[in-house]
Amino acid sequence: MKLRVDLLPHGGYSDTVLVVDILRATTTAVAYLERGASALLLTRSPDVALALRDTTNAEGDTVRNERYLLGGERGGLPIPGFDFGNSPVEAAGQNFTQREVVMNTTNGTGAAHIAATSGKHVLLASLVNAHAAARRARALAVEEIAIVCAGTDERVSLEDVYAAGVLAEYLLAMGEFTIDDGARIALTLRRNLGNPLEALSSSSHGVYLERLGLGDDVRWAARISESTIVPTLEAQQGREGVLRFVAG
Amino acid sequence: MKLRVDLLPHGGYSDTVLVVDILRATTTAVAYLERGASALLLTRSPDVALALRDTTNAEGDTVRNERYLLGGERGGLPIPGFDFGNSPVEAAGQNFTQREVVMNTTNGTGAAHIAATSGKHVLLASLVNAHAAARRARALAVEEIAIVCAGTDERVSLEDVYAAGVLAEYLLAMGEFTIDDGARIALTLRRNLGNPLEALSSSSHGVYLERLGLGDDVRWAARISESTIVPTLEAQQGREGVLRFVAG
Ligand SMILES: [Ca+2]
Ligand SMILES: [Ca+2]
Ligand SMILES: [Ca+2]
Repeated sequence: MKLRVDLLPHGGYSDTVLVVDILRATTTAVAYLERGASALLLTRSPDVALALRDTTNAEGDTVRNERYLLGGERGGLPIPGFDFGNSPVEAAGQNFTQREVVMNTTNGTGAAHIAATSGKHVLLASLVNAHAAARRARALAVEEIAIVCAGTDERVSLEDVYAAGVLAEYLLAMGEFTIDDGARIALTLRRNLGNPLEALSSSSHGVYLERLGLGDDVRWAARISESTIVPTLEAQQGREGVLRFVAG
Repeated sequence: MKLRVDLLPHGGYSDTVLVVDILRATTTAVAYLERGASALLLTRSPDVALALRDTTNAEGDTVRNERYLLGGERGGLPIPGFDFGNSPVEAAGQNFTQREVVMNTTNGTGAAHIAATSGKHVLLASLVNAHAAARRARALAVEEIAIVCAGTDERVSLEDVYAAGVLAEYLLAMGEFTIDDGARIALTLRRNLGNPLEALSSSSHGVYLERLGLGDDVRWAARISESTIVPTLEAQQGREGVLRFVAG
């Protein structure tokens, strides 16, 4: 079995993909499902998200479909018209039973769309569900597990690579893998950057979120393997530009 | 002063750029200049390289301009029609006095072209000229030094990131910098992957070159700061698709 870690989304995935954007999209995704959401819809753009929720009736009024709640951010800040930011702490304080959360974020949703272009199995991974995500990937994969770090605006994010190292460590404990340079780099970070909170707090985006007053999200994201929920891309996909994930 | 390490070429460089492709383009570049080459011409494609050396005369015969020697590789192997591979050991055994070496390689020359699109000062760096390259960059830079790892086919190469860490270490010893996640990752590799030969030998491309019988090149590339030559992009550029570097 091959283990590949892409420090940025690259494409060309043929088997099982773990998408990692721990600050904060894939962490928040787990929180939504933990709090009862029946599905997550990752959209290609904010407009696609708004169009899912809001339609115009014959009288020209906007009609809101109560099935959907919108969560997302641009550069860490909420998107106008959305119901929620991209905060796992905010999500953990709500009840999403019988709701579907439509997500659009700066980097994570784009990475998921790249993964879904060719990947057979696409899972969302974070530190909070790391062990469950690794175990699921190991069970699904036939020849390759690719861990795909979302990064920030096409540049590598330390926190995603560190999380990839945590996932890689779990996987290596589960069986034999041939690994690539990305995996070697991720494992080196995991083994030398201290505990998760130290690693996340030293990253550029961790520092940025702390400055925005979102330090609680960083601390929430730094807990390892507290959830067994793995957001899993459904085999049957519906609308163009929308990926549907359910709890797996 | 800002220090930025791009684990893959990204673009958007505004000041001083150190291009790193230590296996083997930027290492071999230093060897050519050490052995007397008056310039290095990094071309966008092999065809541009061949067109520099070979022209057709009125009788339809190919005429070779003896000023130019062609060096390059694709996937580690020589390019048909080229005079040399991309081997620092091969280069170190030749005399290039009064010759210009036209280079085209899989990743390094492309990274140099991306750097040159907007960078004010573009230097080629490797382990063998690391200290000199760092010192030159520090002297030239006004607000930012960007270390750009070439990578392999758009995926991150461990050996380039390790070399970026060596350069970053030298730079941090020369003055104050604010650093990004790429620099943090590179420094972590530098400090934890052992000596240069251990790091290069553990990389995918190092293993691949060893298998091709080019292990001597890996060992040559792993020596730190043995040369004070820094290939430096000339301010005045001539032909389209060709970057001219001279010893600095
Ligand atoms: Ca992120
Ligand atoms: Ca290379
Ligand atoms: Ca190259």
